[in-house]
Order: sequence, then C-alpha cells, then structure tokens
Amino acid sequence: MSKEKSFSRILRNILGPSALQRLWGDGLHSAEDDPVELSRMLLTTRGEVSGVAIADRVLTLIDDLDEPGFAQFCAALRDQFEVDIDAVLAAANAAKSGAPAALKALQAAAEPPRQELFRRLNAAPRGTARLVAFRRRLLDAQRADPSFGPIDIDLRHLLRSWFNRGFLVPARIDWQTSAAVLEKIIAYEAVHAIDNWDDLRQRLAPADRRCFAFFHPALPNEPLIFVEVALTRGLATSIHEVLKSPRPVLSPDEADTAIFYSISNCQAGLAGISFGAFLIKQVAADLQAELPGLRVFSTLSPVPGLARWIAGQGHTPEALADDPDALLAAAADYLLTAKDRAGRPMDPVARFHLGNGAELHRLNLRADLSPKGVSQSCGVMVNYLYDLDQVEARHEAHAASGDIAAARSVRARLSNKGAHSA
Amino acid sequence: MSKEKSFSRILRNILGPSALQRLWGDGLHSAEDDPVELSRMLLTTRGEVSGVAIADRVLTLIDDLDEPGFAQFCAALRDQFEVDIDAVLAAANAAKSGAPAALKALQAAAEPPRQELFRRLNAAPRGTARLVAFRRRLLDAQRADPSFGPIDIDLRHLLRSWFNRGFLVPARIDWQTSAAVLEKIIAYEAVHAIDNWDDLRQRLAPADRRCFAFFHPALPNEPLIFVEVALTRGLATSIHEVLKSPRPVLSPDEADTAIFYSISNCQAGLAGISFGAFLIKQVAADLQAELPGLRVFSTLSPVPGLARWIAGQGHTPEALADDPDALLAAAADYLLTAKDRAGRPMDPVARFHLGNGAELHRLNLRADLSPKGVSQSCGVMVNYLYDLDQVEARHEAHAASGDIAAARSVRARLSNKGAHSA
Amino acid sequence: MSKEKSFSRILRNILGPSALQRLWGDGLHSAEDDPVELSRMLLTTRGEVSGVAIADRVLTLIDDLDEPGFAQFCAALRDQFEVDIDAVLAAANAAKSGAPAALKALQAAAEPPRQELFRRLNAAPRGTARLVAFRRRLLDAQRADPSFGPIDIDLRHLLRSWFNRGFLVPARIDWQTSAAVLEKIIAYEAVHAIDNWDDLRQRLAPADRRCFAFFHPALPNEPLIFVEVALTRGLATSIHEVLKSPRPVLSPDEADTAIFYSISNCQAGLAGISFGAFLIKQVAADLQAELPGLRVFSTLSPVPGLARWIAGQGHTPEALADDPDALLAAAADYLLTAKDRAGRPMDPVARFHLGNGAELHRLNLRADLSPKGVSQSCGVMVNYLYDLDQVEARHEAHAASGDIAAARSVRARLSNKGAHSA
Amino acid sequence: MSKEKSFSRILRNILGPSALQRLWGDGLHSAEDDPVELSRMLLTTRGEVSGVAIADRVLTLIDDLDEPGFAQFCAALRDQFEVDIDAVLAAANAAKSGAPAALKALQAAAEPPRQELFRRLNAAPRGTARLVAFRRRLLDAQRADPSFGPIDIDLRHLLRSWFNRGFLVPARIDWQTSAAVLEKIIAYEAVHAIDNWDDLRQRLAPADRRCFAFFHPALPNEPLIFVEVALTRGLATSIHEVLKSPRPVLSPDEADTAIFYSISNCQAGLAGISFGAFLIKQVAADLQAELPGLRVFSTLSPVPGLARWIAGQGHTPEALADDPDALLAAAADYLLTAKDRAGRPMDPVARFHLGNGAELHRLNLRADLSPKGVSQSCGVMVNYLYDLDQVEARHEAHAASGDIAAARSVRARLSNKGAHSA
Repeated sequence: MSKEKSFSRILRNILGPSALQRLWGDGLHSAEDDPVELSRMLLTTRGEVSGVAIADRVLTLIDDLDEPGFAQFCAALRDQFEVDIDAVLAAANAAKSGAPAALKALQAAAEPPRQELFRRLNAAPRGTARLVAFRRRLLDAQRADPSFGPIDIDLRHLLRSWFNRGFLVPARIDWQTSAAVLEKIIAYEAVHAIDNWDDLRQRLAPADRRCFAFFHPALPNEPLIFVEVALTRGLATSIHEVLKSPRPVLSPDEADTAIFYSISNCQAGLAGISFGAFLIKQVAADLQAELPGLRVFSTLSPVPGLARWIAGQGHTPEALADDPDALLAAAADYLLTAKDRAGRPMDPVARFHLGNGAELHRLNLRADLSPKGVSQSCGVMVNYLYDLDQVEARHEAHAASGDIAAARSVRARLSNKGAHSA
Repeated sequence: MSKEKSFSRILRNILGPSALQRLWGDGLHSAEDDPVELSRMLLTTRGEVSGVAIADRVLTLIDDLDEPGFAQFCAALRDQFEVDIDAVLAAANAAKSGAPAALKALQAAAEPPRQELFRRLNAAPRGTARLVAFRRRLLDAQRADPSFGPIDIDLRHLLRSWFNRGFLVPARIDWQTSAAVLEKIIAYEAVHAIDNWDDLRQRLAPADRRCFAFFHPALPNEPLIFVEVALTRGLATSIHEVLKSPRPVLSPDEADTAIFYSISNCQAGLAGISFGAFLIKQVAADLQAELPGLRVFSTLSPVPGLARWIAGQGHTPEALADDPDALLAAAADYLLTAKDRAGRPMDPVARFHLGNGAELHRLNLRADLSPKGVSQSCGVMVNYLYDLDQVEARHEAHAASGDIAAARSVRARLSNKGAHSA
Repeated sequence: MSKEKSFSRILRNILGPSALQRLWGDGLHSAEDDPVELSRMLLTTRGEVSGVAIADRVLTLIDDLDEPGFAQFCAALRDQFEVDIDAVLAAANAAKSGAPAALKALQAAAEPPRQELFRRLNAAPRGTARLVAFRRRLLDAQRADPSFGPIDIDLRHLLRSWFNRGFLVPARIDWQTSAAVLEKIIAYEAVHAIDNWDDLRQRLAPADRRCFAFFHPALPNEPLIFVEVALTRGLATSIHEVLKSPRPVLSPDEADTAIFYSISNCQAGLAGISFGAFLIKQVAADLQAELPGLRVFSTLSPVPGLARWIAGQGHTPEALADDPDALLAAAADYLLTAKDRAGRPMDPVARFHLGNGAELHRLNLRADLSPKGVSQSCGVMVNYLYDLDQVEARHEAHAASGDIAAARSVRARLSNKGAHSA
Repeated sequence: MSKEKSFSRILRNILGPSALQRLWGDGLHSAEDDPVELSRMLLTTRGEVSGVAIADRVLTLIDDLDEPGFAQFCAALRDQFEVDIDAVLAAANAAKSGAPAALKALQAAAEPPRQELFRRLNAAPRGTARLVAFRRRLLDAQRADPSFGPIDIDLRHLLRSWFNRGFLVPARIDWQTSAAVLEKIIAYEAVHAIDNWDDLRQRLAPADRRCFAFFHPALPNEPLIFVEVALTRGLATSIHEVLKSPRPVLSPDEADTAIFYSISNCQAGLAGISFGAFLIKQVAADLQAELPGLRVFSTLSPVPGLARWIAGQGHTPEALADDPDALLAAAADYLLTAKDRAGRPMDPVARFHLGNGAELHRLNLRADLSPKGVSQSCGVMVNYLYDLDQVEARHEAHAASGDIAAARSVRARLSNKGAHSA
C-alpha cells in the first residue's frame, strides 16, 4: 500500500472522475477550471477526501497555466489570501487580556490564509513535490514582479518547517543506487559537470570515492543536496588529479584525507533553505567513524567570482595568468577582503564554507584548467579546511564578527599584509 | 548512515561531552542545567551543530523534570516565550503600507517565540518523538493549569503541519512485521484488549484478518493509529464472532464484507490531530482494489456512553437487560438524539464515524458480553456502514447541518419516531 | 513478482485446476492420486510447467499420506528408484575406454533415479522447504525400517550440496526481526527454553545481548541454526547470571567477553548437515570486528550426558551433589576420557565444541539449577573457549588424533591425572 | 553482517595472511602456488575455515593462470580427479548385496573426485560466481581440447542442481533498479544492442515497457537471463516500431498485447542450463495477472540463420529482397522444414521458441532493417505466439514428435505446400 498509489486509488475509487461535480454541485460547475475559486473552496471544505481531490485539481490547473496566467494566479494569492491588517489590530487589542482564546485568535488573524492553503495543497498526491515545483516558478515570477514577495514568505516559512533538519534522511549514493536517483545526480551536478554515465561511474564506483545526499521522505528519488568526496593521501590541489581517468585507486584504509570536491543543491524550489553545512559536517563525522585513518577534511573549491573581481579592479585576468605571485595576491585579496553589501565574503563559495566554520587553508594555481575554471576562477582553486574540533567555534566567530579563519600562508599572499589584520 | 546514529555520532565526534562548555564558555556554565536559559540560548545561537546539541540538552533536562519542575518550565514557556502584543500592534500598523518587509515583520511579531523554539528542538536526535512525548505531558499539566493552553496552541499548530496528511506513510501490519512494532500494537489497542502474543497472532496471521496503520518517517517503529479488519461473509454482529478462537478461516476471495472492528489512536501526544477518517477510507479503498469481491465496509463498534446515558435518564441499565425492545429504543434514542454541547452526537464513537460520513446501519444486542462491553455499552454494538459512494456527501451534510445518516430499521427503533425527522 | 506467488499463479493461470488431466489425458487419470506413479511420470516429462505441476502434486500427495502410506512410498523409492547394478557394471566396463560419453553414461547409471526425482520435486512451489519436511519424516520412518537408508543417502547428498556453505545467509536476529521469524526462535530454542515473548525480548532487545542465525534463500522465515550471545565483563559461569531478569545492562563497548550460551539447530530435516561450527566462528569474527574490546569468546554449555554417565559408573548423581570435588572429578573424567564408539567424546556438546577446535576451559558447579540442568548435567556447566588464533589448529589436531584441548585447571581435576596424558 | 564481507573478515581475522602456512606447515610451503596440489589438499582437509581459505587460494591461482597454464590445470582435473573405473566395478559388485553401506560406497566410487572439489570451491568467498567464471573459461578451453569434456559434465551437473528452478529469483528490472545491475543489462543485451543509458531508459522507464530477469541468491547484481517486453495494441510487426524514439506511450491498461522483443542469456558460464522457457511463461502469467486486458503474448524475433540458409540453397539473399513472395516462401521453408542434425528446427531462435511450445504465428518483411537484421535475417522478423492455454501441450507435442505449431497463413507461404504436412 504505497502512499502515492493509494492516494490516487482513493481519488479514483471513492470519488470517480466526476467527484468534484457530484460533491459541489452547480457551485463547482463554474469553478472547476478556476484555480483561484477552487483555492477558496479548498479553504472552506470540510471533506477530507474531497479536500484532497480539490487540492489535486488546483495543483493540476496551476501546472497548466502559461506565464501570464501564472502571474495572474500569484496576484490573486498576493491580494486575496493576504492578512487583514484591521482584523490583526482588532485581535491584538483583544489579546491584551492574555486570554488563551484571544491569543489563538490573534495568531489566526496574523497568519495569511495562503499558509493554510499551502498546507492543504500539500495533502494532494505528491503534494510536497508539487509545491516545491510551484515555488521554483514563483521565484522566477518574483524576479519579474517583486510584489509577489509575501507569497514566498509564507511558502518558505512552511517549507523550512517541513524540511527541518529533523526530517532529512541522509543516504549514501553509489553504484548500487537506482538509476532514477543517479540521473538526478547527473542533472543536478553544478560544479564539475558529469558528462555521462561512465563519468558518473568514475565518481561513484571506485573504493576511494564517496557521494552522500540528503533526502526528504515526501520527495522519493529526489536528492535535496549532495556532496562528492575523494579519499586521498595528502591534500588534492587540482581538480584534474581528482577527476582524471584512469587513475590508480587507493584503498580507503590508506587514505588520510577526505576531499569534498563538489557540493550541489538540487532543488531550485528550496532555494534559501540550506542543508549544505549540516551535510558536510555529518559526512565528515560519518567518514571519520568509518575510516579512523582520516585526519584531514577539506574541500577543493572554485573561486567563481575571482575573474570578474579582478576585472572590476581594472586588471585583465589574462595578464595575471603569467604572474603567479600577482594572481595569488589577487586571490588572497579577493577572498579575504572583498565583501558583499551585507559585509559577508563576496565570493559565494567562500561565503558558504567560511560561514560554515571552515578555514581558508590553501590557494592552488592552475588547479582547474577547464574553460569554466579559467574564465571564472582564473584556474585557481581553494582548499577550505573543516577542522572538526574548530568548525563550530569558527562558525560562531565568523557569524558574530565576520572573522575569517585563514592559514598564515594564505594571509602571507595579501598584497597589503595589514588589510585584514582583525 | 542511519539518521539517528549519525546525529549522535556528530554530537559525540564533533562536539564531545564538553561541547556546550567549550562552545559557550562561562555564559553556559551557569546555564547548562537550566532548560529555560538554554531554550533562550537556542533561539539565538547561529551554530548549526551546537544548536542541535543545545536542543538535545534542553529535551534531556525537560525529561528529567519532576511534576512541579515541569509546571515551572511550562509557566516560563507561557510567559517568557509569548507574543509581545505591543510589538504586534506596531508591526500591524506598519504593515498597512503593504510593503513585503513590513508584512514579514508582522508575521514574525505575531508568532510566539516558542514556535521557533519547538522547531529548533525538533532538530535534536529523535526530536519529533521527544516533542510528541513532551506534548503528552503538557496536556496532562494543562488539565491542572489551563493557563498553559497557549503553549499547546503553538505546539499543536506545528505538529498538525508536520503530521500533515501528505507526510503519513500507510503500512500493513502483519505477522511479518517486526516485534518492535507489534509490541506497540499490543500496548496501544484501546478497544478490545490484546491479551498476549498468541492473541495478536490470531488477529494478524490468518488470511481473513488485516491490520493497517499510519506511520510518520520521523517516528520509526511508532504507529500513529491502526485499524483491525476482519474479512467476512455478511455483516459481523458480535465481537465474539470476530475474536473467538479457534474459528474457521475464510479465503479472502470469498469475503464480501470488511469489518473494521477496532481502531486505536496510539500517541497521546498527538491528541486532537486526527488520522482516523483518512485511514478508514484509505484502507477501504485499498481493500476494494485488492479484493474486488468486497461489497460492504462496516465497523463493529461499541456504544461506550450508552449505560451512563441510560442511567442519566433515570433508568438502570440492568433493568433494560431483559427487555430487548426497550434497550434497542434506548440505544436508538441515545445515538440519534443525544447531543454534546457543540450539538454533535454525544457518543464519542458515533461522533467519530458519523462525522466521517458513515451510516448508523444496525444495532446489535448481546454483541459484546465482556465486562467492559456490558458495563459501558449494555452489550450493544453498532455497525457503522462506510458506503464509499456516499461517504463524502454524508460527511459534508453532517458537518453542515448535523444530519445523521441512519438505516430505516434503526430509526424505527426510536421511542418517539418523530424525534429526529429532520 | 515474488517467487512463490508467481509460481502458484503460473500453475493456476497456465494450467488451471485440471491441468494434469488435460496434459496427460487418460494415462494420468488412473495416476493422479498415486505419488509413485506420478513420480515416475515426473522423471519422464519434458514439460517445464507441467513438471512443476506434477512435482507440486506429488509433494501434496506425500503430505497427505498416513504413516503406513508413507512407509509404502518409501519402500517404492527404495526399490523402484534404485540404481541398476548391472547397468552400472556395463557402463563401468564401457567407460574403461575413457571416452567422455561413456564416462557420462557411467555417472548417469551410477546415480539412483530418485536423485533426479528429488531435484525435480525441488522445483515445485516451496519445493526445498517441503523436501526438508519430507526428510524429517523419512528419518523417523528410517528408525522403524533401516532399509530406507539408501533413500536418505541420496537426499542428504543433494541437501548438502544445496545447503553448501556458499549459499547460507547469515543474519542478525533482534527485536526488529519479524514475528514470523521470532516465533520460530521460541519454538526451536533447544537448550534453555524460551518461556514466552517477554523472555525472548530479554534475550534480544538489551544492548548486551545478540542473536545470529543462518538462513537459506529457499527457506524464507526459517532459521537453520541460531546462537544466542551475552556480552559480559569476565566469563559468565552460571546460566542464571545470564538469564536473570531484571539485571543491569552492560554497554557493548565495555564488554570484554562474548558468551555463546545457547546454540540450536532448527531443522530436523537437515540433521547431519552441520552449520554450527561455521556460525560460531563467523559470529566471533563479526563481533570482534564490531567490538574491538572483546578479547574472550566462550560458550557456557551444559554437560547433558553427565548424570547418566555417573549413574553408569555405579554412582548416584545425588550422592555427588554434596561433594564438589568428587563431582568436578567426575565431570573432568567424563569430558576428557569417556568416548563414544567412534572414539569421539561421549558427551554430545563436548563432541561438538571440541570438534570445532574449542578448548575445555572451565568447569562450573551449581551453574544450572533448573530441573533439566540438575537431572542431566548435575548442575554443571562448561566454558568452551574459542581462541580464534588456535581454533583451526586445534580443530585439525582433534580431528586427526582425537587430542582434546583442555585448560590445566580442568586436567587437574581428573581423578587419574595420567588418564589422558596423550 | 553481509555474507561476503563476513567471509573475507573471517579469513582475515581468524586466519591472517599467513594462514595457510601456519595451518599446513612445510607441506604447504611447496604447494602454496600449485593449484593442483592445493586442490588435492582441499579434498582431504577437515578444517572448515582453512578449507575456505584453501578454496579461495585455489580460485585465485586459477584466475592468474595464462592459457597454457589453464589447459594444464584442466588436464590435471581430467586425469587426476577422475573416477577410478576399477573401484567402481568393485563397488558395483559389492553393491549387488543391496546393503545400504555398499550402495553408498558405489555412489562414492562412481562420483569423480572433482565434483566434491567443485563443491568445496563453492564455499570460498564469491565461490559460485567464480565457478561460473571458471566454467566460461573451461568451455573455451574445451573447444581447443575436447578431452576436457568430462570436467564439464561434472561442473554442469552441479550448476544445474544449484541453479535449479526452485532457487531462481524473478525480479522486475526498471528505472528504479541499481546502476550496478543496469550496466549488466546494457552489456548482456544480445539481440538489439543498447547503445547507451538513454537508450536503456527508453526500454525501461516508459509505462508501456517492461523488463524481467532471473537472479540467483549467490550471484547478487548478476542477471542470469532477461526479457524485454513492449505493451502494445495489436501485434508489433517491426522492431523499428518498438524501439523508435520518441514515440507515443500507451497506458498499460489499454494494451492488449505483450511483445517479447528481446531475450538474452547473460552468463556464458551457465551455457546449456536453460532458464528462458520458464522466464517467458512466468512473465506472461504475471503480466496477465497484473493487466487483465492483455490477450496476446507474442515475441518479435529475428531469423538469424535465414540469409545463410538461402545462400546455401544457391540463392543470393539480395536477389530475394525485391521479391516479397519469394522471400516469404524462403522464410517459411526455412523455419518449417530446415532441420539440424538432431532433427530440430535449424534456426536457433525458432528452435528455442517452438521448443517452448510457441506457435510460428506471422512472418514480417522489412521488419528489421538494421545492418545485422538485413545481413542475417534478410530483414524478416517472426512473431512466435505464446498461447498460455496451448503452450504446454504444444511443448510436449513438439518434444515428442517434432510437430511445429504454425498459423495457416504461414504454412500457406511454403513453396511446396505438402512439405510438412505432418
């Protein structure tokens, strides 16, 4: 009695194809193709099974909307399922009494109706997956029309609760994994593209390669995030070293280092709900438990904003290509001193790993000579070190004061040594 | 890499036993045994792993609290993690502008901080299970001190979202099921007690017996609710018929009726978050798909409030025991006309099934002669019929107008035939 | 598409209930209830599916035979499916040429037809399980009529090949295991009876208890043999210590000793096909890999022939009960010097463990005061030590020369110290 | 405690790298690299664990042998592990008495020692898989030196028993299957090559495509045989129709026909141990149970010997290409009248399906225009019909008398209508 099949079976068996009409009579007749009207019905129905049927219908209708239709639906969500401020004010005044019922009423008043709508849509067959897909589209629409922002506030709020750390399921991905999952790995790999299944095999099957992902029970076959790991002796300092084929395979027992050489978020519809820090720390802890010989946990990461930043400084990246010292200085300057508007590291990869509590450990020249590696990162790659004993303290320190943990050898590359003495 | 083990391993490996001290220094020193202080820290920490560690610690401390200590913790949750009404009013006024940021701020202001606290506690190892256990205790405490009500409003709100229909996993329970789950079935059976494992075997192993449950991915081995089913030819009209042993076993292909003879909620900490209606309908739909010969889906249910109601009418149930007609009339009167304060059927079992859209189909005398059956239900049992074609319409009708679907033969037993002509 | 269901489905779908008649016409008509005649048909049919149908029928008919009928069937197997000696002689003479075809013919001639019959019966639904059940009955019948011996030679030959070490599947049994398997554990426990499910839980659920079994893919839910293990600090020297309840539970990490306190063969139909030695050694190796703190692997075993042997020596076991030294001397004499006709240790448990290469390590008085423990073993239990570094060498030495590895302290108990100086 | 890992762990833990030396002392010293000598030891050792270690060593040594070395080893197997004919004669004479012990002795004498050797090798880690690999090499060697035939008689005898129908595990292969299995499907597809993973996906993922395989518990991840099925409306009469991409996907409920368009044996080392007939019949029965709308089960098969046969008749296949009637007549003549030396259909595919009890139902021109389809089959493909009501009777009839079941329309194509009137 698999969840999804049973759901569909119920809708078919209990309700039949004309269920909505039968249940809702003429009122529905006019509404059955109108996702806004059906959404309103969904909020008022008391029918458990018919609720699921309506939710299913709403999601199907949304799916069929073209771009203007989708924007129109979002506009309705924004305007017609919004909080009634006057009602909130009245409820808040009443709640001054501190009476439980009044406090409950305040909360009800302060929650936009679309939150409950999303909860009910979630009960449809494959509801969670469809809401994640809906959010992907919503984020696109929001780029065109920022007034949709409040819709996403509600949806993200729910997704954050549903994709709470406590509900994530970690799993190893290997050559025993089903093709249905593996094709997602190929599709979602965002750092070093996987060309084909042979390439994938090279990353999963050898004894010195690992891959781990987080899943959610409501999204079977859909990884949320995954990380690819190479077990090595000593630090890997170029991606070619890691990905070349053929290469000698190391026995895991002989490895002393785990290199996280690629980490990819999979679900655009879960943007802003982050899993990466926990995945890396969990994988590091698990690997250490399995392979006590591992002493070093480090990434081998691109510096995707480097070339653009150099250009912004008035240099041409090409010019630096022949001057290793200058390029290293530029990389050190960029990673240690360039900030975004919020005062965080400008480089997105640095932002992620330093935010997690990693140390900027080593700069590597000519470490990624692929077209993308050259054009974005000037061929530079960085090892961010996850020192399990320090990572939480560094994470807190960085969050509190922006402190960047960096190896002395990296700081020594700064063009102005005092730049970031703090 | 199982979820729970990995969690614990991280806490142990990354953090070590003195993790909190190390991370929090002297500030923690004074707080480390104070669940309220730690809860406050939990809301402000930015550390992902240390957040999990603190959450774990808070839940452990709560667990160790005695009754007065628990009440004290609840009082703190009530008072110190409540909404700031003035802040809500200010935010609501600001939100009149309709600016997304202001709307977001309103929502943040209107959500009591304990909701976020519960979300963060949920990330601890076995967090969801521990929060469900916490709520069981909270409900007990609330009986003694109703002012804890608002805490439960928040917790129930979250649990309802996390135990959303879309996240429930239906599963068959049978003799292949693990003992760890089966011992829960024995413990949780609330209608007709399961005496021992042999008794359990009689209910699970024969080909004409079925049992289904809902599970939640975050509560492995813990059924949320389960229903026991007997496949029969014709309606079962006494529980003895169903439970006697030995008895001839029917081939499922020959059954025309599925009798739901017991349905038990398992988690006191999930009280008020109902799964039963959906489980029955799902099981009925699944059974019909598997066994096309099934034509009738019906319960065989007690009438647990009957004896008390008869006593309240000034009769002694014993007096009616020898007068079948009078007892049937009393049962019909009770089930069709007696209401609770909210105008719903007074009998809790009737309330559940009629509320689901079932029909009050048949009254059976001397149908449960166990001590409990006699003392509560005067030996009467009822068949509530789940007619899959009608169940949703009846559910809606009952919800809208209080209409009770009852067979003519049942209505004919009313002492005053016009009593419920509506 | 589960194996068994598919099989039955084929027989039903393709063949229908009258399949045999349809396929075999009138010839079958007279044979359809005659297992001997059908067995002969089974050896000649070329139909793959009808072969399965006939095999199924034969096994069903055998199952329905009463004792005299079964003996009659065995007599037919013995006489009518035996090797034709003259044919063997002819084939052997022809094979002197060394021609492959002639060698093949010799083998065919030398193999009794009932071997092929058993192979074909094995293809019936649940064939292997039914053949194992058949053998149990055959062994009983053989006790009454030893002339059935040659049948078992053939059947055991096949079962030995099918239950070859390479096909056994080791599995841990714990409280997560299905009830269908666990009830077999209760039923099959042969050393210290498991009274009920609570008793079973005490042996499986605590962190310092383990149970392992061998399964065979063709016998799902049917353990072949299992061993119960207690993790302890120091040697357990009485069974009461191991089985008492409640008792403090030890963290597995703190254990230094694994006590194999019960080992039970489950399938009477697999008598003489031994799995025990390998199971113990495999479990010991696995436990050591999982828990590096374990240093000692030992049994705590009964001495089931002791009381009888003492009686045979003209003593009354009761008389020795009050004389610890005399009882220890008797136990040492019995275990070290008493032999069966084949020159192996007379005590069956000693024979098994010493044969495996264990050392007779320690004698324990008043170690099993249960009625069975007293009446058979005079309350004595023995620790047989499995020293993983020595076990193979000792096994070989014992097999070659009958050498018994025994601790000096045990030898010191011999009444005549020189008795077994060899 | 997975089987294979445990095995290796035992060998490592108990025995250590120098186990053989330790156990066997100087005797081994000279033998440790000699597979023949070790094989002889393996037959005499009583050590269970050391037996496994020696078996492992023997298989590893064999694996390392080059071609002449392998032939030399086979020669030893042939000569030194053969039956002793004189011993058989003596034993047969002794067995005339009918004494069980004498009969047992006869059997022992008649069984070549290499059979027991193979059984013991099977107990090594991955023993079964390695013996299957050994047999593949043996069959190659036998082509060069037919005197190795008797070795294969013994090995095939064992493999037939171990791969007995009762031990096969049917499984569906789909896009949820692990990549480790799917890459084998790509590698083993023998009829219509699978170009890459996208091609594979087209054959597995769509709702109207199925694939089923038989597995053996001792060969995880290794299909023994698999069949690919297309669900269609009406008979598919060209392979292009089946394999083209993109194509509209049919809902399985609407299909009335199952086309078995490819069936591949996977294990060269299991040649001559046939699984195909049973797989097709089982799949047909399973599909019918799942999809009651299916009425027709048919293959779409090549005629791989047609072009060669036409050439043998003195025609050029090219000449017939433009004369449909002539080509059809040639195909009918070939399939219905051309026989191999044993009197069976000359075409191997026809031999297989007609032998299974299928009907030669339809000839299709221009049905496979791939280079292989044209060069071998002149573009012709055949539908062999599996009529579940007839298949067993036809199978028996064909086996008994060589009768070919063919549709009238096919017979009508014979150049000499009376050719196969029988």
